[in-house]
Amino acid sequence: MIKIAVVGYGNIGKAVIEAVNNAADMELVGVVRRNSSLDSACKELDGIKVVSEVEQLGKVDVAVLCTPSRLVPHYAAEYAKKGICTIDSFDIHTQVPTYRKEQNTFCIENNTVSILSAGWDPGSDSVVRALYEAMAPKGLTYTNFGPGRSMGHSVAVKAIEGVEDALSMTIPLGTGIHRRMVYVKIKEGYSFAEIEKKIKQDDYFVHDETHVVQVDDVNQLNDVGHGVNLVRKGVSGATHNQLFEFNMRINNPALTGQILVSCARAAMKMKHGAYTMIEIPPVYYLEGEVDDLVMRLV
Amino acid sequence: MIKIAVVGYGNIGKAVIEAVNNAADMELVGVVRRNSSLDSACKELDGIKVVSEVEQLGKVDVAVLCTPSRLVPHYAAEYAKKGICTIDSFDIHTQVPTYRKEQNTFCIENNTVSILSAGWDPGSDSVVRALYEAMAPKGLTYTNFGPGRSMGHSVAVKAIEGVEDALSMTIPLGTGIHRRMVYVKIKEGYSFAEIEKKIKQDDYFVHDETHVVQVDDVNQLNDVGHGVNLVRKGVSGATHNQLFEFNMRINNPALTGQILVSCARAAMKMKHGAYTMIEIPPVYYLEGEVDDLVMRLV
Repeated sequence: MIKIAVVGYGNIGKAVIEAVNNAADMELVGVVRRNSSLDSACKELDGIKVVSEVEQLGKVDVAVLCTPSRLVPHYAAEYAKKGICTIDSFDIHTQVPTYRKEQNTFCIENNTVSILSAGWDPGSDSVVRALYEAMAPKGLTYTNFGPGRSMGHSVAVKAIEGVEDALSMTIPLGTGIHRRMVYVKIKEGYSFAEIEKKIKQDDYFVHDETHVVQVDDVNQLNDVGHGVNLVRKGVSGATHNQLFEFNMRINNPALTGQILVSCARAAMKMKHGAYTMIEIPPVYYLEGEVDDLVMRLV
Repeated sequence: MIKIAVVGYGNIGKAVIEAVNNAADMELVGVVRRNSSLDSACKELDGIKVVSEVEQLGKVDVAVLCTPSRLVPHYAAEYAKKGICTIDSFDIHTQVPTYRKEQNTFCIENNTVSILSAGWDPGSDSVVRALYEAMAPKGLTYTNFGPGRSMGHSVAVKAIEGVEDALSMTIPLGTGIHRRMVYVKIKEGYSFAEIEKKIKQDDYFVHDETHVVQVDDVNQLNDVGHGVNLVRKGVSGATHNQLFEFNMRINNPALTGQILVSCARAAMKMKHGAYTMIEIPPVYYLEGEVDDLVMRLV
């Protein structure tokens, strides 16, 4: 049994626990939270060991890091130094190469494996984009997200003075162009027109078609469904007009959690080092013997 | 430069040559044919070295085997023993595990790599099926082929007495069920009704809805376009109704040839042994440095 610790307990942490509980070859050893005493009140964690330091959990094979992205490299380094493999969904795109390189050193020094930027995008979508280029090296790929909420954009709106709550939905318009539909609840005494203007001028929104709608209760709009439409038209050899399309309609945290857990399985099979999902043999994600999986899937 | 030899020169061999000629990191060293003297008459091969024994080509890194599937394991073993890596699109499904195991031994003994059953199905579709199971371990995947011609079914019809030429089209009906549309030209003196009956009773057709149509010229119907619709509905963690769909509309030999060539690149990066595509890190198929590819695709 692969011994899994979950670090951080938000939407993704919950989904990871569900995925571990549904994997026959894995065992949840516990949850690590900064303030573990808070969880005496948390019903969902009944029967799960909650600690503030991973050492309190005994042997751990893989730690799934479910903290905010900006904290991930810090924890990944710390866990590697403790000899524990890590999986994360780090999504600060420009920092991936640096984080991967530094983490690779920690992994090799401490005989561990890290799989970083795992999830669906970055993650399984990255694998599809790589496969597309293997099938048609010349051409254009467009990743169209949604409809679904963007956490980053929602947080950016919430940071604006006078906004009580906000939800930013990403609407795909094709060719990688997206509309932002922003739903805001405004605090008393603030002007909607002013807030609408500030949102549209924000760096997160200034380049996209953005519509702002005032609502009474943002929570009533909450739906964790998301999707992608990932298309490529390209050239195989000397032959043009090769058409590829990948679509999914999914519960976002459930898919992210599942992929992190499938990556935890892969981590046990890789050589020491840090990897993104395009560097992992897909069969490593799956339970069972390679011979059987080849027979069933190839 | 990766030195590529193409073994066999049919539709796939031609497509492999086109893909090699469009790859900046590869060089076509020549074509190996049983009867290489035939090619003095073959215009397409102008400027390409055509030989009957691979030794006549000097150093070869990878041989792409474009012979009929039943001959592939023989050639793969022979080339491994010569210290040459091989790529093939072996598609006799039930024999894949045995062939893989035996070829793995030859590869390890001779310090070579073989990637077998590469192409789009088996091949890139197999990778998508594996990725689907990583994303939603429980559920059902359906591979719907076509519309496009089936070589195996066309050959089976041509083998029936009284058939001069035949084309069997595969039509997807969903949930992995296919209709067979068979177009036949009949030799003089044979009964269409008799031949239609024999086709419908043939092992290749007896389990599928099959329609037989008599035509004057099968060649006028020839189109190498093909496609797939690969769907999964499944469970991520504890969350049901996760929906995934992959579609493509492609020139069949061009895509097969391109994927074989991308696999030739991957072969140079794998440890010695024999692999199917679900065992290959996707980034290995691509030209360029891993760091750059991670930056661009992840």
